[in-house]
Amino acid sequence: MLSKSQISFIKSLHQKKFRKEHNLFIAEGIKSITEFILSDYRIENIFCTAHTIPKLDKLLQKIKVQEITDTELKKISALVAPQDALATIHIPQETEIAVESVQNLITLVLDDIQDPGNLGTIIRTADWFGFKQIICSAGTVDAYNPKVVQATMGSLARIRLHYVYLPDFLQSNNYPVFGALLEGNSVYDIDFSDKEGILILGNEGRGISPELKEYITDPITIPQFGKAESLNVAVSAGILCSEIKRNSAK
Amino acid sequence: MLSKSQISFIKSLHQKKFRKEHNLFIAEGIKSITEFILSDYRIENIFCTAHTIPKLDKLLQKIKVQEITDTELKKISALVAPQDALATIHIPQETEIAVESVQNLITLVLDDIQDPGNLGTIIRTADWFGFKQIICSAGTVDAYNPKVVQATMGSLARIRLHYVYLPDFLQSNNYPVFGALLEGNSVYDIDFSDKEGILILGNEGRGISPELKEYITDPITIPQFGKAESLNVAVSAGILCSEIKRNSAK
Repeated sequence: MLSKSQISFIKSLHQKKFRKEHNLFIAEGIKSITEFILSDYRIENIFCTAHTIPKLDKLLQKIKVQEITDTELKKISALVAPQDALATIHIPQETEIAVESVQNLITLVLDDIQDPGNLGTIIRTADWFGFKQIICSAGTVDAYNPKVVQATMGSLARIRLHYVYLPDFLQSNNYPVFGALLEGNSVYDIDFSDKEGILILGNEGRGISPELKEYITDPITIPQFGKAESLNVAVSAGILCSEIKRNSAK
Repeated sequence: MLSKSQISFIKSLHQKKFRKEHNLFIAEGIKSITEFILSDYRIENIFCTAHTIPKLDKLLQKIKVQEITDTELKKISALVAPQDALATIHIPQETEIAVESVQNLITLVLDDIQDPGNLGTIIRTADWFGFKQIICSAGTVDAYNPKVVQATMGSLARIRLHYVYLPDFLQSNNYPVFGALLEGNSVYDIDFSDKEGILILGNEGRGISPELKEYITDPITIPQFGKAESLNVAVSAGILCSEIKRNSAK
């Protein structure tokens, strides 16, 4: 049984303002919640419907779970079709960008990605390909937005996101800066093996902003064989991550 | 000025049932509508707000455009943030699957893709990479769903979709059948050059259905370097289309 104030508190976490105020976000679905339990994240509360409690694995059974009704779940969920469980989870403190990691790998940089589904899908894709962190412009959609968390399918638990002022970050960087543009060298011809560097992906509508374009040392492009004007940014991220790994794995 | 019955008629086209009954669908935004005008599609009506009429290019000025208010556009739009224009367009008659095309190229086959955004993004991606047609299971989301049309960014005007009973289609096919699975040969090692064949992509939740798996002659996989359980299907489609073209272009 949830109190009215619990319901309105959890619902408030659908909004960035209140996530920031309380340093909490929500994740939904046993699978996704399990990924956060297995990570460094600290769980605050888990709310679970009665018929899913028997399905909880041992890991979850060790954690205090509050039983709620389907109606209550519907009230606190950010999903159109709520799943089996919802957890409130502490937002970790902003950590330093792990320089070791930047030094050993191509680091993804996102310039003002606006669509939560796109950001979530990019995080999931980065996790598939073994990336560990993503650097985002301050104007990129909040990674703890419920739609982003949902689209990551648990991968947010493993990928660290840093929101920074990108011109400063790029100014202080000495590695090659690859930029995904409509005109550049074919990504199929680039040898990423043993390469350290940064790869910038731009906003859905306008691409990479002019002030960041200045920092690009290596413009790259995904060759076009047909007539679409552009690719979806999450699809581009997938193809580029795949090419980086294919080339590095040679 | 739109009449009440016009508004309710156009709104009814948000639903598959009425699209089927009237053989019409809607597309929104000047850019997307222009792509349909340039294609074989027949436009029924274009509705446009006053402040966008001066922006219409010559092509659109030749077609009769009905001026409507922002409020009216909001009423008939399927978008949260309606754009500048909306058109009603005739759904083309189901054509034969173009066998020439199947014989010269890898053909994409979709097994019960459910999410409109995923289908739209796959159509856009297929268009970028120069594919001409997509074969869909009868259970795949309707390509004329407004969310699909929107996500294709005009590419639906160039890609022909066929909804068929897939077991019959695969039964009658003599080409290799590639299936995107979690276990298979690495797509990086497959030589698609001069290859004819079919590539099946499975449903978001359950992958390729067991009855279709039987037809797969070449299981292929996108190598995993990290810990995500799977990739989003549109991202997978992007990586696989890119690999097919990269290998064919050698």
